[in-house]
Amino acid sequence: MAAALTCSAADLGQHLNSTAAADYICSLFGEVQNKFTDTSYAIDTTYLLFSAYLVFSMQLGFAMLCAGSVRAKNTMNIMLTNVLDAAAGGLFYYLFGYAFAFGDPSNGFIGHHFFAMKSFPIEGYDYSHFLYQWAFAIAAAGITSGSIAERTQFVAYLIYSAFLTGFVYPVVSHWFWSSDGWASAFNTDNLLFGSGVIDFAGSGVVHLVGGVAGLWGALIEGPRIGRFDHAGRSVALRGHSASLVVLGTFMLWFGWYGFNPGSFLQILKPYSSGTYYGQWSAVGRTAVTTTLAGCSAALTTLFGKRLMSGHWNVTDVCNGLLGGFAAITAGCSVVEPWAAIICGFVAAWVLIGCNKLAEKFKYDDPLEAAQLHGGCGAWGIIFTALFAREAYVHEVYAEGRPYGLFMGGGGKLLAAHVIQILVIVGWVSATMGTLFYVLHRLKLLRISVEDEISGMDLTRHGGFAYVYDDEDDQTTKQGIMMRKVEVTNKNGSLPAV
Amino acid sequence: MAAALTCSAADLGQHLNSTAAADYICSLFGEVQNKFTDTSYAIDTTYLLFSAYLVFSMQLGFAMLCAGSVRAKNTMNIMLTNVLDAAAGGLFYYLFGYAFAFGDPSNGFIGHHFFAMKSFPIEGYDYSHFLYQWAFAIAAAGITSGSIAERTQFVAYLIYSAFLTGFVYPVVSHWFWSSDGWASAFNTDNLLFGSGVIDFAGSGVVHLVGGVAGLWGALIEGPRIGRFDHAGRSVALRGHSASLVVLGTFMLWFGWYGFNPGSFLQILKPYSSGTYYGQWSAVGRTAVTTTLAGCSAALTTLFGKRLMSGHWNVTDVCNGLLGGFAAITAGCSVVEPWAAIICGFVAAWVLIGCNKLAEKFKYDDPLEAAQLHGGCGAWGIIFTALFAREAYVHEVYAEGRPYGLFMGGGGKLLAAHVIQILVIVGWVSATMGTLFYVLHRLKLLRISVEDEISGMDLTRHGGFAYVYDDEDDQTTKQGIMMRKVEVTNKNGSLPAV
Amino acid sequence: MAAALTCSAADLGQHLNSTAAADYICSLFGEVQNKFTDTSYAIDTTYLLFSAYLVFSMQLGFAMLCAGSVRAKNTMNIMLTNVLDAAAGGLFYYLFGYAFAFGDPSNGFIGHHFFAMKSFPIEGYDYSHFLYQWAFAIAAAGITSGSIAERTQFVAYLIYSAFLTGFVYPVVSHWFWSSDGWASAFNTDNLLFGSGVIDFAGSGVVHLVGGVAGLWGALIEGPRIGRFDHAGRSVALRGHSASLVVLGTFMLWFGWYGFNPGSFLQILKPYSSGTYYGQWSAVGRTAVTTTLAGCSAALTTLFGKRLMSGHWNVTDVCNGLLGGFAAITAGCSVVEPWAAIICGFVAAWVLIGCNKLAEKFKYDDPLEAAQLHGGCGAWGIIFTALFAREAYVHEVYAEGRPYGLFMGGGGKLLAAHVIQILVIVGWVSATMGTLFYVLHRLKLLRISVEDEISGMDLTRHGGFAYVYDDEDDQTTKQGIMMRKVEVTNKNGSLPAV
Repeated sequence: MAAALTCSAADLGQHLNSTAAADYICSLFGEVQNKFTDTSYAIDTTYLLFSAYLVFSMQLGFAMLCAGSVRAKNTMNIMLTNVLDAAAGGLFYYLFGYAFAFGDPSNGFIGHHFFAMKSFPIEGYDYSHFLYQWAFAIAAAGITSGSIAERTQFVAYLIYSAFLTGFVYPVVSHWFWSSDGWASAFNTDNLLFGSGVIDFAGSGVVHLVGGVAGLWGALIEGPRIGRFDHAGRSVALRGHSASLVVLGTFMLWFGWYGFNPGSFLQILKPYSSGTYYGQWSAVGRTAVTTTLAGCSAALTTLFGKRLMSGHWNVTDVCNGLLGGFAAITAGCSVVEPWAAIICGFVAAWVLIGCNKLAEKFKYDDPLEAAQLHGGCGAWGIIFTALFAREAYVHEVYAEGRPYGLFMGGGGKLLAAHVIQILVIVGWVSATMGTLFYVLHRLKLLRISVEDEISGMDLTRHGGFAYVYDDEDDQTTKQGIMMRKVEVTNKNGSLPAV
Repeated sequence: MAAALTCSAADLGQHLNSTAAADYICSLFGEVQNKFTDTSYAIDTTYLLFSAYLVFSMQLGFAMLCAGSVRAKNTMNIMLTNVLDAAAGGLFYYLFGYAFAFGDPSNGFIGHHFFAMKSFPIEGYDYSHFLYQWAFAIAAAGITSGSIAERTQFVAYLIYSAFLTGFVYPVVSHWFWSSDGWASAFNTDNLLFGSGVIDFAGSGVVHLVGGVAGLWGALIEGPRIGRFDHAGRSVALRGHSASLVVLGTFMLWFGWYGFNPGSFLQILKPYSSGTYYGQWSAVGRTAVTTTLAGCSAALTTLFGKRLMSGHWNVTDVCNGLLGGFAAITAGCSVVEPWAAIICGFVAAWVLIGCNKLAEKFKYDDPLEAAQLHGGCGAWGIIFTALFAREAYVHEVYAEGRPYGLFMGGGGKLLAAHVIQILVIVGWVSATMGTLFYVLHRLKLLRISVEDEISGMDLTRHGGFAYVYDDEDDQTTKQGIMMRKVEVTNKNGSLPAV
Repeated sequence: MAAALTCSAADLGQHLNSTAAADYICSLFGEVQNKFTDTSYAIDTTYLLFSAYLVFSMQLGFAMLCAGSVRAKNTMNIMLTNVLDAAAGGLFYYLFGYAFAFGDPSNGFIGHHFFAMKSFPIEGYDYSHFLYQWAFAIAAAGITSGSIAERTQFVAYLIYSAFLTGFVYPVVSHWFWSSDGWASAFNTDNLLFGSGVIDFAGSGVVHLVGGVAGLWGALIEGPRIGRFDHAGRSVALRGHSASLVVLGTFMLWFGWYGFNPGSFLQILKPYSSGTYYGQWSAVGRTAVTTTLAGCSAALTTLFGKRLMSGHWNVTDVCNGLLGGFAAITAGCSVVEPWAAIICGFVAAWVLIGCNKLAEKFKYDDPLEAAQLHGGCGAWGIIFTALFAREAYVHEVYAEGRPYGLFMGGGGKLLAAHVIQILVIVGWVSATMGTLFYVLHRLKLLRISVEDEISGMDLTRHGGFAYVYDDEDDQTTKQGIMMRKVEVTNKNGSLPAV
């Protein structure tokens, strides 16, 4: 927030030879200052809340992207997990997650205030901040659900989702984003390598966390039946609706404008009061870098895949685009637009490379979530340490901070960022990897072969997601010829909707 | 709005011994005050307009939810009604509705200014307010369309929609939201039970109104053919696309952030100028209570339905979630987050109970709209009277007002809220019930048996909503084997699109 | 922006007999002024960025509208073009487009600064402005893609899209919207007919440009196979999903609230400081005129088409609605709400008329894009010149400007607007018409007959967009009877996704 007006009644009284006049005038300036304070809370909260709503809309994006990317027979299953990410995430983040992440004051490892919004709000921690952070937490869970789609028991899903949203993710966000976090660039007492980690909107905190969690889940479960044939060759199991994939991708793009520019949390912060250049400009620049990274990744993927596969593939372009976004997320506020284009270009090849690796190691991830969010997220962390520009780092974080290696800022930021990747991979592996393994040993992780072949919608969720024709039409086909997509159980009873 | 700066040139002139100096200084403070006035209009209008856009996006949510919840053969019909809610609603709300609702000054029963925006805008009633209220009005009509889906003549739809948006709903919103309304908490002259009704964003004004209107429509029409079998057993007529249901639900969730927090109409209002706590914080809290009520209702429905039906049902969870939102809508601004969780928990069971009742009485409502918006809306009204917290009621409404019974606030608010339920049920039954009955007697309400069996899209709307394969493919299937979902009329002609 | 506070230390010093006191007080007022400057940048940027996000969401709307309006076999193709409009548009607009459009200072014909955001931002040109204008540029390309859908080579698409977004459209926007443009109402040096063109949000700059480009593309390519039968009769080739059409239409409606009201670029501008009436009110009015024009066009289309075709057609109503929006876009900020209703009414008939003409001349435009955006866009330009109200023109543009002919403002505005239509048609024909013709001669424009019949998704994009049933289900149909919609290549291999 901007510096307050200072009207000293003592000083002014001397100039005026009147204490009463000075008091009168200074008290008016005091009221003016109060009004600026009110105004700035109103603007910043408006900005943050609408950003939070945009981030929330990404959950719709995930749901549609996931639905379109799985086979029709598992559509309801994956969409239910997306709805529950948000819903269960809401309760767990309220009860524990926010407290672990942002409880203030706290130690460097984990927060321990604000459980169930006790003693809340206080200055600096308002409801809008909670809502914004909740929307981030459920995004992480949404990423993971993609990796383990089409073969995971619903109960396993509920358990890991609560654990990730309520504990694993909040702890990571505490480390890197809380003012107490041991690796946070906002921790003014003790900066890691004199720098702290610049993971502005969460290439690491959100995307790498979600991606590594998904990686372990998918590794432990193994690939879907039929994903690799008897000879070990990769067989694409196509998603059932490209329209839903594109719908989801555009919604994620839309929501990313809340995710990245919104991470400033406030927009009314002058860098030099009274001029056109301030945080509002940096917010706009962040929206531009985000856009350009996605655009360049999409185009790179388009032509890259065209060369490799011979056709123009829309779902690949969508994934490439999202990979560009996941990569720029860490550095979006501190890099130049031209650097964002490089970020996206490399992200596209990182994703292509990770997908090649996945195929080679017979790793099956229906949404490419570990590759996309994990791989491109990790690249984004490195990218930031290479391309962060001095002026922007100093404006957005603080004067005197290390900046990008390629921009002449030395290796300290890179060192901090390598540490970030290592600890995130370590922490998520230790927690989520263990959890998935325990679920696996308890036979709670993977569904039966029968369920997988029939599809979970029919066996667990009450029916197929689509009915393009109806029972009652059969009896009276008045002038309409229609071959039918029928869905009934053997005994003819229809499950309730 | 905040108190204005008061600079008295007379007082200051005395202190300074200079009228000219005092005038000079006070006129500058006057300019400062004017700038704060401008600033606050700009912020509040930005806040209100974007909230209005979010509420409008709920119309997209309704359209997709309705489309997914009906059978494929009636998809175009229901979507057309949703488009027309917005379109016809726009004209009727402009011509009459806004005037009946917010015409100022007016009597306690109905407004009578601002017809066709005559003498508009004036202070306190700007275009953004019109747009916001229009978006609410069409939401009420959208609710009703769900109840009578799949069997209502299109002309009946046009008539009831215009009547509801142009007259029935505006009158109710006048009673409870206008500063002249006889039961409004904003009516400072004459408060019902010294309290007025706290229906902050319209569990009663919108949801109960829409639900009761739908109830009468669906009761008078009777159930869809095949909805109850010869033995009177309930037969689920499944909606044709769970993807559209989930899409619609998430859009409604997204839009609800305009509906509930937006109902503050302004965000720049300090409760104590110069501190972090003000209406912006209450706005954020409202977003949080809304979220938590939906989350808790969704989870309650998930497990409740799992116990009852044996499977995890995504469309039920979606409806439960929306029931939680409908319930919290009345009290969202004046209850604690923990109370919102209780609100959602009970709302889930209210919806389950209403659905059981509906089945028992052979009431058929394809969207569960009367149960969801009527039942959970009514619960929300009672909930508010029980859990409204003193401090919040005083901040959001006015000092000294009665608050929730369970919070030690006595029974006055509850008395007012019971009155609200009774008058809404009475008024909507008297108007919409009568209208539906008249339409029924004039044979304008229900479609013919033939139309119902064939589906309205083919008989009234020019064709089936989906064509996954095309005529011209039949002749030249170059390497593509595809069994087809064909839709043609008997005579082979395709209707124009 | 509002007038700045002026505190003259010299004047005040005389009144106070104290230079020090005057300096002290004036420097405080200076700080206050700076804070107002900061505040106003924060508000206006918030307003502009969220408007830009809404305009971007129209790309999702276009994608879904286009997808639903084409046959299933070309769904992936059209959606890929919509994704690439945004992605390629991002890079080209960054490299060239923004510089051609808004490079400052520049000549009247074309801008030549800010290439690749060089020397950017400066006062008056911030990142938020770039983002907003980019979202407009890709909308123009999106319009054109509809006209040439289902029969255009992908490489032709890439070429025209880059050319349109990077050059043709930016030049037009320079003419009419840049402060240097020869026909711009913001060009204070040299106003065309003493007026300049009032094309507030781009009925001409965006819609007519996109429509004329599409017209030439579709004319040169000719109609799709089967669109007119051997006897020359029109055969409707129905789109494959009305649900996607409605989804897209509602998203476009939602996004139009960014397009039209957002075109004010700033919301904090008092018309008379300290009163309730200012630019915020004009912004709201613009949202209302936009809404009413769409509503009236939708209803007119509903009843008009009912009379002509005998059924209630949802996709026609959607197109009519969008035609109303395209028409009101030019004059939305300067006409009364009642005039907007007239605008929409006429727009509906303009679209119906253009469609009749198109059929007569065997012009095939799968999205009716040339008719809708070109025809209704042109009508909107004329409408503005007839109905622009004096007071609003003076508030939104400048005092003393000519206004609408029917409102008593004389013919100067009409003259300027006729010129606008002529130069846009001329410029776009000369550039895009030539480009399409060259592509046609180079055999790069239209796909082969085989590809067109098979559908581009199978031949160029790796497969069909939908798979409602899966290979592996065939072997083990446990209790599930399902007739299948299969999509395989003859050789049984499934293309990679």
